[in-house]
Amino acid sequence: MVHVAILGFGTVGGGVAEVLTQNAAVLAQKVGQEINLKYILDTREFPGNPFESKLTHNFEDILNDPEVQVVAECIGGATIALEFVKKLLAAGKHVATSNKEMVATHGYELLALAKAHNVNFFFEASVGGGIPLLRPLACDLAGNEITEAAGILNGTTNYILTEMLDKGAPFDKALQEAQAMGYAERNPAADVEGLDACRKVCILSALAFGFHVYPDQCATEGISSITEEDVAAAASAHMKVKLLGRTLKTADGKVCAFVAPHFVPISSQLYHVDGVFNGVILRGNAVGEAMFYGPGAGKLPTASAVVGDMVDAVWHLRERRRIDWADARPEAMVDFKDLPLPYVVRTTASPAQVESALGKATALDANGYLLAAPTTRRAIDESGLPLLAVRPVFQ
Amino acid sequence: MVHVAILGFGTVGGGVAEVLTQNAAVLAQKVGQEINLKYILDTREFPGNPFESKLTHNFEDILNDPEVQVVAECIGGATIALEFVKKLLAAGKHVATSNKEMVATHGYELLALAKAHNVNFFFEASVGGGIPLLRPLACDLAGNEITEAAGILNGTTNYILTEMLDKGAPFDKALQEAQAMGYAERNPAADVEGLDACRKVCILSALAFGFHVYPDQCATEGISSITEEDVAAAASAHMKVKLLGRTLKTADGKVCAFVAPHFVPISSQLYHVDGVFNGVILRGNAVGEAMFYGPGAGKLPTASAVVGDMVDAVWHLRERRRIDWADARPEAMVDFKDLPLPYVVRTTASPAQVESALGKATALDANGYLLAAPTTRRAIDESGLPLLAVRPVFQ
Repeated sequence: MVHVAILGFGTVGGGVAEVLTQNAAVLAQKVGQEINLKYILDTREFPGNPFESKLTHNFEDILNDPEVQVVAECIGGATIALEFVKKLLAAGKHVATSNKEMVATHGYELLALAKAHNVNFFFEASVGGGIPLLRPLACDLAGNEITEAAGILNGTTNYILTEMLDKGAPFDKALQEAQAMGYAERNPAADVEGLDACRKVCILSALAFGFHVYPDQCATEGISSITEEDVAAAASAHMKVKLLGRTLKTADGKVCAFVAPHFVPISSQLYHVDGVFNGVILRGNAVGEAMFYGPGAGKLPTASAVVGDMVDAVWHLRERRRIDWADARPEAMVDFKDLPLPYVVRTTASPAQVESALGKATALDANGYLLAAPTTRRAIDESGLPLLAVRPVFQ
Repeated sequence: MVHVAILGFGTVGGGVAEVLTQNAAVLAQKVGQEINLKYILDTREFPGNPFESKLTHNFEDILNDPEVQVVAECIGGATIALEFVKKLLAAGKHVATSNKEMVATHGYELLALAKAHNVNFFFEASVGGGIPLLRPLACDLAGNEITEAAGILNGTTNYILTEMLDKGAPFDKALQEAQAMGYAERNPAADVEGLDACRKVCILSALAFGFHVYPDQCATEGISSITEEDVAAAASAHMKVKLLGRTLKTADGKVCAFVAPHFVPISSQLYHVDGVFNGVILRGNAVGEAMFYGPGAGKLPTASAVVGDMVDAVWHLRERRRIDWADARPEAMVDFKDLPLPYVVRTTASPAQVESALGKATALDANGYLLAAPTTRRAIDESGLPLLAVRPVFQ
């Protein structure tokens, strides 16, 4: 029997408890022994809850119990959760987490700590929710030189953009609808301004390219500036506006990580990722391109990923799975503004002015121009054109 | 340094050699030591080939070299390849293979042998080519009770069906086009009659449900009976005809594995999988649904999966990764003909005759009827209606 614990009895922690219990037979068959949920840590009381007998308010109960070998961290944030995870790893306990903020800001440090204590630190749920993504990237595609990871990493913003397209709604109205449906928080800034996607790009980038990228190294633009005209201009060119998080290797071997609303053509699988779903493309020099699609959030899908990590930890109790990356390498990164990309520029300038400033372009509508050659954002910003919007095109 | 060998220097074996060489630096960083390709076994000579110095005609060179720890089997078929793999596993060497025929017919036996000798037997490339699929199913989704695996598992037939739709071409012409493009063999039976997809369903089923399903336990229908009228009827209902391989668990806990042309609605991600690409949906009681898309065949994508397996074997040289399943359980399976599914029936009968025989139905065109309630294939076959085609609808 393997004893495990959960930190935090909120949505994700509750889901992990539910999956461990409901699928106990399947899990026991997979790992070859029973998985016993021994503790759930939370500051609150849950009178009458079926898991009430597992509850403790005292983190030391878990930390100091030698029987507990694997812990799921479901508190969130990078303060108390970080302190607890560090103590657990140092005590030789394996940790699985869904906490993207903690991994994006302290992943390097935590992986080094896990390595030093020969334990596993897994975080499959931190990117793409329930979608199997990080293990395929780190393991199935290990034979590849990865060239890009790109995707729709935030369900809230994708829901809003889908609403804007399907109903011709303005941003504010689509946001309110997302809030009414429970897909957006009352304070939606972390989603809408792209911070959530940024954290996920940092994690993808570290796994893909082997060194930590901190959130402030990832240029981030959200969707609050997207207008109905943007959405319509994209549709007229058989494209959709999607908030993409991307990290890619340039021809000279540098890495660029960024989050920005893109025009995505119908020929891309990401075009078909609508509503609250997530979709991620991984590109490598052997596989070409693979795409992963599924629920990027939600109680049980997120718990699915956390429990998958707990199973992998049980499989590797004695010999940890090799996952680590180096600390940040600012000299190996290129500024998003200097990365040549295909762009759509929306401007009140005339076609002749656009071509004079930025070269050949195809008019999409009265104000939209698809530039013929890849161009940098810096060149566009410095073109002197009166700009309404500047959107990279995903290729 | 870890020494490895390749059996068979055809397309896949050549791709594995190329990936091991071209991406040697990335691989060394991932596994923490150099991977040295020591031997390539083939009966042929390759004068002037850059890998000529690695070639041997003698399997014993590999079998009896204690330095060789991991072997990629890229011969194909289930005769000589099977004999070699058994000897390698028994000699304590780890094996990675792309050989779906061997795994579908001898997977149980080979996994038991691998377990007995504490070595890994991996076969990620056998289903979905380069798409990470089997490891996500076995590991990332380990916390789920899997309810279904379903997908477009054969690129040749998907290319033919895409051509039929895009160009309104009859089957014969689309097949010739696929042969001219090199996507179909001169003898296309294994693809066209569904045998290739059947083998992949057997492997998915064993991983999803824990016991071996042999090819003769998987009802298999190919695409040679698909007509332009079928394709047009589907299109009129916003659906596409796709050859799907599926294995699913019924409400009473039985398993049904089958390959059949389906009508796939536009609401499914599989609708958007066109040309030679593969796409697979995995469903579980925690994750809901996840979809995996990518190149299902090809030299480098297949090599990507084989090399990923070799890396995982190097990570687990001492403590094997836990993958196994039980032998066949015919009593736990249900006949495809008795599985209730949504169906489209194409018949020359009148609407009144269709409703009288099979209950309420929606007319798609002059001969096509979408039945309102799930029905069994047996009930349709025994309805006495003059049938042109019977196609399940994917939901």
